[in-house]
Order: sequence, then C-alpha cells, then structure tokens
Amino acid sequence: MANKHPYLTTHEGKLYLTDQEKGLRTALEIQDILFDETSPYQHIMIVDTVLFGRALILDGIVQTTEKEGFIYNEMISHMPLALHPKAEDILIIGGGDLGVAREVLKYPFVRRVDMVEIDERVVYASRRYLPEVAAPEDDRLHLYFEDGATFAAQKEAAYDVIIVDAADPIGPAAVLFEHPFYLALERALREDGVMAAQSDSPIHHIDVGKRTYQSLKSLFPIVYPYFTTVPAYPSGWWMFTLASKHYDLLRPLDPGINTRFVNDAMLRASLAVPHLFAEKLFS
Amino acid sequence: MANKHPYLTTHEGKLYLTDQEKGLRTALEIQDILFDETSPYQHIMIVDTVLFGRALILDGIVQTTEKEGFIYNEMISHMPLALHPKAEDILIIGGGDLGVAREVLKYPFVRRVDMVEIDERVVYASRRYLPEVAAPEDDRLHLYFEDGATFAAQKEAAYDVIIVDAADPIGPAAVLFEHPFYLALERALREDGVMAAQSDSPIHHIDVGKRTYQSLKSLFPIVYPYFTTVPAYPSGWWMFTLASKHYDLLRPLDPGINTRFVNDAMLRASLAVPHLFAEKLFS
Repeated sequence: MANKHPYLTTHEGKLYLTDQEKGLRTALEIQDILFDETSPYQHIMIVDTVLFGRALILDGIVQTTEKEGFIYNEMISHMPLALHPKAEDILIIGGGDLGVAREVLKYPFVRRVDMVEIDERVVYASRRYLPEVAAPEDDRLHLYFEDGATFAAQKEAAYDVIIVDAADPIGPAAVLFEHPFYLALERALREDGVMAAQSDSPIHHIDVGKRTYQSLKSLFPIVYPYFTTVPAYPSGWWMFTLASKHYDLLRPLDPGINTRFVNDAMLRASLAVPHLFAEKLFS
Repeated sequence: MANKHPYLTTHEGKLYLTDQEKGLRTALEIQDILFDETSPYQHIMIVDTVLFGRALILDGIVQTTEKEGFIYNEMISHMPLALHPKAEDILIIGGGDLGVAREVLKYPFVRRVDMVEIDERVVYASRRYLPEVAAPEDDRLHLYFEDGATFAAQKEAAYDVIIVDAADPIGPAAVLFEHPFYLALERALREDGVMAAQSDSPIHHIDVGKRTYQSLKSLFPIVYPYFTTVPAYPSGWWMFTLASKHYDLLRPLDPGINTRFVNDAMLRASLAVPHLFAEKLFS
C-alpha cells in the first residue's frame, strides 16, 4: 500500500508521511492508516500520527489534525465572525473536514450554513474518523457536493460571511485562488458582508498571499492579511486574508463561544504584519 | 565526514541536516559545509542550506540562519529594549553567533555590552562565515569566553538589560534554564532592570517554558511569556520570557532602529498568549 504513493515513506521500520518543499523534507510518523481511498478528485487518507493524533491527508498533504487543527479552524472562522456583528447566513467553500462548520455553528445567531465541498468522500471520512474536528449534526448545516466556484457564481447578496477553506492552490482547488472567484464572492455577499480566505504559507508561497491580498484589495474597501502558526504545516507560518465591505472593528468574542486557541488578544495580534511579509504583500 | 554525526544524512544523493523530535523528522538540505570543528564544548558547523542560506549548527541543532535568524534575534532583543527606556549597560549570556549583539548595538544610548559565551570557536566561526548575522566590530562590545552562570553570579546591580540567548537546555546550556541562574540574573540587574530569555518550543517542550515562566514569576513583579514563529525551528512556534523589575509599558521602537521583522504592532502582538499555551503556563 505504501509504495503507491511517493509521500508515504519508511525509515528504520517506521512509516512516515513525507512533505518535500524546496530544501526541506518534513516527515510525520504514522502509526496507522484508518482510511485510504482514491476519490474522483484526490487521494484521501485518515492516518493516526504520533505527534498530532489523527489527521486528514489529501494527495499527501496534511489538511487538519486532531491535536492542532483547531488553530487553523478557529483563526479562519472567528476572525470574520468577530468583524460581522450578526452573521446569520454563512457560506463555507471547501472545508470538507467540517472543522470550520464546527466553529461557525457555535454562534447562536447563525441561522444557516451552506457548505460547498467538491468531494463527498472527504466529508464521509472526516465524519467517521475525525469526530473531534468535524461539526456534530446540526439542522442549520446544508452540504452541497459540487464545485465551489460555480455555486458561488449563482448567488447574489445571499450571505453575511463567506469562508474559503480551500486546499492548496494545486489540483482541484486551484480555481479558488483566482480573481474571478473572488469577484463572485464579492457579489454573493450582502452589502455589509465579510469574507476570510486561507492564503497559504508566507514563507514558501507568499506569491499566493500577495495575489489573494491584491485581488481582494481591488474588490473590497477593507482588506487585512493576518497570520498565525500552524505546527502541522511546513515552516509553521500561515496567512489568511480578511475582506470586508463595511465593518472595520473587531468585536470581542461572544461569551459562551468556547475556543482552544483564539481569544481577543490573539485575534487582534494576528493582524500585526511582520516587516518581511509586509514588504512583499504591499508592494 | 557525514558518517561521524547521526544528524548528517543523505537522501537521493543530497546531504541533509536531520532533526528528530518525537513523531517528526525534519531534514534541511545542505549544499556545503563551510566549517566543521569539534570544540571542547560541542560540534560546531557552519553549513550552506538551500532554504535558509548559511546556518550555525551546534551538535546538529540549527541555532541561527542567514535568511531568518533575524526573526529570533530581533524578538529576543527589541522586546526588553522596548520596555527599558534607556538601557546603557547590557549583558548577553550565550549568543555566540553575535546576532543579539548586532540588534542591541543598534541603540545609540547603549554604552557597554558584555557578552559571555562559553565557546570561543562559535564566535570565531560566526564572525568568519555569518557576517549577515554577527555584529560588526564595535568598541562597546566586550566578549568573555567563560561560563555565563558563573559570570552572572559575580555581578550585582550592574546591568539595565540582560538577554539570555542560550542553546537548548541539554548539553552545556542546561544550567541556563535553572532557578539559581535566574536568581543570579535578578541580582545582576539594576533596580529597574529588564531581562528576556529564550524559552524553547511551546509545542515540543512547554515544560521548559513553564519552568522559566514560573521561576521568573517568583523573582520579578512583572513577567510575560511572548511568542513568535521561527521557520527554522521544528514546529515553528517559539517562546520567550520577559521579566521586569519596574517598567511595564512597551515604548514604540526608536526611529532609526532598522529591523526586518519586528515593528511596534509585532512586539505588542507577540504578548498575546494562545489559550492552549496559557492553560499550561499559568496553571
């Protein structure tokens, strides 16, 4: 089984998931493979890692993990929800592990969450093997297994908050990093709408962050890059982009919203842009 | 040469520096070894890496690199210097790559910097091969090649700022993470003194951070953990601890202090403590 995929390697009798960036190999020890299936879109695995517990792997790339996936999911979710004062209708593009849905559904004022994930099998595997990540059953959550860009293009002024939890901009998610897609999102948002998108590693792929930031900057009056550190991603640093049509002030987290990573100070802190990224993003 | 040291490995004809944490192997591709010497204290290498340029490696562990070492050095240096309004006498413990000295010497009001590094050969190698990291010649810099803990224990009310830039708490630097050492630093500081110490990875070794925080908290009225992300260190996240006898308000960075990573927003942001670390540090 291990030999079919170049990212599954062995070393001294142990199995590793290996990521090769330019000049850096990262190998995460795997104790067990719980789910292993090739869908029409990608190779899906749920593995049990020594360091991060269970993890969702798409085409060899770690998407989320049991022990630290909440960092990414909380950062991409609570930031737009701290900006919009009362988001009732939410659209999630991607997010097949249901981790963003879990965070968004914590808000009692959220009325409806549409989630558009191209690959039904990712949702199936996450629900079955990642119960700590995936949202529990909730009548407000509506799943659509189709192309996110096409779905969004058919909507107009329909959402208060849109969250783009796309996989890497290679493979099926590439279109979710392009200007026509962001244009569709701007139209799908209400007149005071807010969106957040994951914008890749500012160490390895700041070109992705720069394109996202500049694309959104041409469409929205208020745009901020923000940053955190996701231990399971190579180099740690991760970038998101927040775009808003109207609101420009973070509210404190609502009491009763339980989080494991973010708090008011962390949300505010994540908006600080280190010099080395600012130079590249804003030029 | 590569076979003497287990952390130098080869893969598909390429040379790597390999770090093995529990459940995670990280391998940094090396193009060239520029300096390779075993001192009485440790195995010192300067290598040229594909990802981070030249790097100082002690006993197989990356200490600093040409392309991102300034993140660590700026965070450990400018934080105490943003707290103390006019630090004239500075003590650096460790810091053999002279990267902290470079940052501290940027302040015109700094009159004297004592730097105590146990291993003269680290300073020699850094000066020769890491000119982008190491401080340039400066009459205010006084180097002492001896044990930092012993040196500090002989000083009383002698410094405005002390910076502990220790290697990992295994090997010769272990004593630099213990309570008696911090007690000596408290005494070596003037009555309004400030100190900062590196406190290891909060992902892999939060016990080190917790001991440091709690030890300093028993000695100083004002103590803050602070965090940043160092891409060359495993998991990214890195912790520092700031301790102050009197000052409790960060000043803006002085104009004329050139930095590549920190700015006022980043310094302030680094004080935000994610829930998952707060739980462990403050309990």
